[in-house]
Amino acid sequence: MQQQRPSAEAGEAGSPSRPTLESVAERAGVSRATASRVVNGGAGVREALREKVLRAVEELGYVPNLAARTLVTRRNQAVAVVVAEPESRLFSDPFFAQHLRGISRELSAADNQMVLLLIEEQRDYDRVGRYLAGGHVDGALLFSLHSADPLPEMARRVGLPFVVGGRPGWPGAESDRDLVYVDSDNRGGARLAVQHLQSLGRTRIATITGPLDQTSSMDRLDGYRDLLPDGDPELIAEGDFTPEGGMRAMSELLERRPELDAVFAASDLMASGALRVLRAAGRRVPEDVAVVGFDDLESVAAWTEPTLTTVRQDIEGMGRLMARLLLRRLTGPTPGPGPTSVITPTRLITRHSA
Amino acid sequence: MQQQRPSAEAGEAGSPSRPTLESVAERAGVSRATASRVVNGGAGVREALREKVLRAVEELGYVPNLAARTLVTRRNQAVAVVVAEPESRLFSDPFFAQHLRGISRELSAADNQMVLLLIEEQRDYDRVGRYLAGGHVDGALLFSLHSADPLPEMARRVGLPFVVGGRPGWPGAESDRDLVYVDSDNRGGARLAVQHLQSLGRTRIATITGPLDQTSSMDRLDGYRDLLPDGDPELIAEGDFTPEGGMRAMSELLERRPELDAVFAASDLMASGALRVLRAAGRRVPEDVAVVGFDDLESVAAWTEPTLTTVRQDIEGMGRLMARLLLRRLTGPTPGPGPTSVITPTRLITRHSA
Repeated sequence: MQQQRPSAEAGEAGSPSRPTLESVAERAGVSRATASRVVNGGAGVREALREKVLRAVEELGYVPNLAARTLVTRRNQAVAVVVAEPESRLFSDPFFAQHLRGISRELSAADNQMVLLLIEEQRDYDRVGRYLAGGHVDGALLFSLHSADPLPEMARRVGLPFVVGGRPGWPGAESDRDLVYVDSDNRGGARLAVQHLQSLGRTRIATITGPLDQTSSMDRLDGYRDLLPDGDPELIAEGDFTPEGGMRAMSELLERRPELDAVFAASDLMASGALRVLRAAGRRVPEDVAVVGFDDLESVAAWTEPTLTTVRQDIEGMGRLMARLLLRRLTGPTPGPGPTSVITPTRLITRHSA
Repeated sequence: MQQQRPSAEAGEAGSPSRPTLESVAERAGVSRATASRVVNGGAGVREALREKVLRAVEELGYVPNLAARTLVTRRNQAVAVVVAEPESRLFSDPFFAQHLRGISRELSAADNQMVLLLIEEQRDYDRVGRYLAGGHVDGALLFSLHSADPLPEMARRVGLPFVVGGRPGWPGAESDRDLVYVDSDNRGGARLAVQHLQSLGRTRIATITGPLDQTSSMDRLDGYRDLLPDGDPELIAEGDFTPEGGMRAMSELLERRPELDAVFAASDLMASGALRVLRAAGRRVPEDVAVVGFDDLESVAAWTEPTLTTVRQDIEGMGRLMARLLLRRLTGPTPGPGPTSVITPTRLITRHSA
């Protein structure tokens, strides 16, 4: 680990006298303009001079003047990631860890700083909006948006390029030519799950949905309905993507339709809750009730008892894609007509629960 | 949820023409200076005028010019939280969620934005250092530092006020009058754990430590040694604060000293791993081996089988304290001589494992 020793120039605590660009130029024996060009990443400086300047920067502990630098370069090399979820969910649902890992690796590779901003409560929106407007980041990745989420409009208003994770659900999004989003094939994935249950001969297939103000939940429910167009509405229960929500929904379903023989849970965490309730109710999985999840979370699906048959989506890959699309947007041409979307495929992973 | 509609002033996508401070002043019927004072939070503007300006800001969708605003106010109302842990641990160890919850609540209450920056690899330090130097935050909270961590020096070098979570372990920290840190009474807590095991008549008490390049691990080991000054070194195994690390350490201990009758694990997660290994080895807890953890994590200690006797530290409270001390530092006088430290008490919570 690289350890930096206190430098004499750091000055007295509380009132550090910062070295100036002039002092860097003087020490390096170059003009102020040359020093400025090197410090601000401009081209056209000979390598030998560049090295002299960088050595002087290092020796003096010089840091470019902050806000002023941003005014010149208009680039922070930093991207905000805004997650509209309470930190209790962010930290307990491995989905987010996998998603953020993809984002942070891609940003790192492009030497961009990931700046994570959480939205816990309604009043946090204004503050986050202010930070996004404050010139601290070059762009934003927005995810876990709910249907009337103000974040995209906030970013747009201040001219901040952004990419959305998940199909946008707000009115007018379909015809918004400036919108870029990444999603997985939620509807197709749900169809895979139900098809698999039907191929096993199951006929009373229930579903536990995610929160129905999120498009991923709606799309998975649509996929379920595609294959069960005349399905019994009492076989549908709404969860909230947590294990506890899955438990509650499974209990409701068992009470309403004790004869059910299969469940498609729209997330692995909800499926894990459902498995617990089925076990407690004395139902054998998969013999009495077959269960299919959604996500294929690394730390969940292979560890439930029995292990979980589930629909795999490439969570880390979606994170990487979001980051890549945003970085391209920050440097490239304006996008063409209509929203740009990248839909990543899903596939069925068969384990023991179905 | 508050939904903002697209405003006409936002202009064409891709090239929004931003409203200026002049247009705000004109619309509000005030001078540019007055508008500027309101926008930058300055005092001395009559309430009626203030409201006119704010209404114009809202109507025009004006945002203060970014970096320029920072140059004037020198305040971003934002605080960086830098966590030197891979995101795999950050998201799987509930310690961090509880700690961040305390920090984010306290910052929120003071209308400050929490800006989370993760350090995953060595090369991330430079990028994070650049962001800290970039004028994007007013101060920083640094935690999970390892002994030769460059972050404090980086922050100091750019004159950024910071508060450290955990006793600093680097050379010279004891006499650094500019240092502020928050820690819990790790050594005293470890003594409580060992005393409790001794009071149960246990005589072959092992310990599983955290990574020994972190002061919290060292302090807990010192507490253990305080009560077992002539202890058998073979009863000490190093873990890494994860359940898997606890499992590995417990297996080593059982192999080296099968006759052990108690274990003090320096974290609840490691204790949960140890319980699993003991169960697999056919040892009854607490009859054959009594186990005490450390942390009292909400989602862990009360859920292990058997439930975990542990040393409680106020994790959320420490987060709040760190935030409060930093906010005070941003506005208040320079600290007095010697490092400022706040050590929060620990206490024993007795459940079934010991």
